[in-house]
Amino acid sequence: MESSIKVLAFAGSLRENSYNKALVRAAIGIKPDNVAIEVFDLEGIPLYNADLENQPTQKVVEFKSKIKAADALLIATPEYNYSIPGILKNAIDWSSRPNVGNPLEGKPVAIMSASIGRFGGARAQYHLRQTFVFLNMHPINQPEVMLSDAPHNIDENGNLTNETTLKLIRQLLETLVIWTKQLKPQT
Amino acid sequence: MESSIKVLAFAGSLRENSYNKALVRAAIGIKPDNVAIEVFDLEGIPLYNADLENQPTQKVVEFKSKIKAADALLIATPEYNYSIPGILKNAIDWSSRPNVGNPLEGKPVAIMSASIGRFGGARAQYHLRQTFVFLNMHPINQPEVMLSDAPHNIDENGNLTNETTLKLIRQLLETLVIWTKQLKPQT
Amino acid sequence: MESSIKVLAFAGSLRENSYNKALVRAAIGIKPDNVAIEVFDLEGIPLYNADLENQPTQKVVEFKSKIKAADALLIATPEYNYSIPGILKNAIDWSSRPNVGNPLEGKPVAIMSASIGRFGGARAQYHLRQTFVFLNMHPINQPEVMLSDAPHNIDENGNLTNETTLKLIRQLLETLVIWTKQLKPQT
Amino acid sequence: MESSIKVLAFAGSLRENSYNKALVRAAIGIKPDNVAIEVFDLEGIPLYNADLENQPTQKVVEFKSKIKAADALLIATPEYNYSIPGILKNAIDWSSRPNVGNPLEGKPVAIMSASIGRFGGARAQYHLRQTFVFLNMHPINQPEVMLSDAPHNIDENGNLTNETTLKLIRQLLETLVIWTKQLKPQT
Repeated sequence: MESSIKVLAFAGSLRENSYNKALVRAAIGIKPDNVAIEVFDLEGIPLYNADLENQPTQKVVEFKSKIKAADALLIATPEYNYSIPGILKNAIDWSSRPNVGNPLEGKPVAIMSASIGRFGGARAQYHLRQTFVFLNMHPINQPEVMLSDAPHNIDENGNLTNETTLKLIRQLLETLVIWTKQLKPQT
Repeated sequence: MESSIKVLAFAGSLRENSYNKALVRAAIGIKPDNVAIEVFDLEGIPLYNADLENQPTQKVVEFKSKIKAADALLIATPEYNYSIPGILKNAIDWSSRPNVGNPLEGKPVAIMSASIGRFGGARAQYHLRQTFVFLNMHPINQPEVMLSDAPHNIDENGNLTNETTLKLIRQLLETLVIWTKQLKPQT
Repeated sequence: MESSIKVLAFAGSLRENSYNKALVRAAIGIKPDNVAIEVFDLEGIPLYNADLENQPTQKVVEFKSKIKAADALLIATPEYNYSIPGILKNAIDWSSRPNVGNPLEGKPVAIMSASIGRFGGARAQYHLRQTFVFLNMHPINQPEVMLSDAPHNIDENGNLTNETTLKLIRQLLETLVIWTKQLKPQT
Repeated sequence: MESSIKVLAFAGSLRENSYNKALVRAAIGIKPDNVAIEVFDLEGIPLYNADLENQPTQKVVEFKSKIKAADALLIATPEYNYSIPGILKNAIDWSSRPNVGNPLEGKPVAIMSASIGRFGGARAQYHLRQTFVFLNMHPINQPEVMLSDAPHNIDENGNLTNETTLKLIRQLLETLVIWTKQLKPQT
């Protein structure tokens, strides 16, 4: 019997009707059977302050624990000002602090993005990839899921209606399963 | 008589003894006479949430007003995870939202950075520069002020002791004056 | 009478029917009256070798002289493998070598790009911008001219037929005139 | 018996006494026993021209064949103008053209760099990494081998004398062996 992998997914937006939260929901709807996806909401992670890093809030501790327990991550990122949104970068900054262990080390990761404009969040993705070099995370190269013109591809109920993107997300998850198993320490 | 320029300075860190706050203090200590520097503390700017962008907090309104009133900006950025710190990016994300006007448009800007490691925050600076393209801000190219090994170059009282960096900061400010005057709409 | 500016334009491709050469021709066709555009063909610039940098070929000397004589540059770049084409980067590498003077220093520059894919060369443009930081060149931020799906927007005679892009190129050149005059040392 | 891996190494410089060629030689001197390193000299690869891509020169064909035959790549890159040298990017551009097969697809890769300045080629490495996303290559994250102040760390005979960097190169190669075996399709 084929084993399944546990994925922790989060969107880099606090907005209720976030297009990137919609991508995460779409991923859950279309995922292969051998993937379990748990969603984490970044709401409540405070602004990072190094003076407080030895007293992380319960929410930060929970975030880090769930990352640690996951086999892989799925990140859906908006693009703000041609880069990673502050709120997403802030969550990564908290989780990376080694004082209570850096759970991101060595983690396989898949990225998606959605934007109103024509580039679908591409610039945020490339900046995220540079962050992964430091964190020694292992992002999938392809497919690159970058949904442009999000308002016309996600309906009023928050459902992704773009068939091409749905297929790409499915392919992204299938690739993530293979990638995660390849990188797992053989036991 | 030569006119002076008004600079708003802020460090991308909430830590009390931040190395980058020390760079801002050093800039004030060494600035040319024709530069006035006001410091803004990012503490208290909340995490950005698009659902709340039409109700910005008093702190956000104040930040945007001060940016608008300034002739130029001076940003001191740490490097977190090979990119811009979440807390700095978050402040930029708030200030860029056009709902109550984007005061960053067309603004001249100088960047400094300090880090514990050997690259002095370089990677955060290049990501910031990409953000400035979208915001149509005008960063100075040179000198690049990137202080590495910060703990040995800033003393226990938070004073920058590295003479080379002090000179570079002076040069950065002199260049910022010339640059700001060149870019100012002639009246 | 308003003075005009001299622009040196070159495309980062050796292909005869290059989409980026077509962008340069389109710029010539639609330019404001106060801009003179001279085109330089990169064909014949050899591969850079530091051992030979004190014996630059006639073509390299000519390239550097023409850059020096220009008030501003207009670069049309393809995107190869998510970055600057080798042949364009190689020409920049040659021209930047200070042995016989670096004519790029302080030069205003406008960028255009065309590609077969959906991003219109964006990734090459952002890498070029980082190169300009070192070279202390001054790129225009906006508009960003990035023509995607080039085969359907440039006809078989090499004419750019996309009206939106034609308007953007016109706007780019108008902005380049203002920018170049602002940055010119007042005499 | 442990199987060994075949690595193709090349430096992104044509200069005879290139610091990056010295890094490649140092790698050969310090490599683990289960790694075989073959060196390829980029001299002779012509400038890329899409019009000629169906008639690649013998040198280009040879480069692509050797990449195809290798289990992994080792690239030593200078940094020119804050990015990848044109001559290295040009070689990658040629080798990536799918007309006669793209041998780079899926290839594990390790990067080193040396520079005269303080950043040791870091900026060239991050641009290379973005290129690898398109090419679906798999770079090692760590260690990052970035030798600064090369003239004082490589002697007149072209020998790398910096002990820390020698150890890092050894560690890079050991990591490359593990990484390559992990990514190899199990048969």
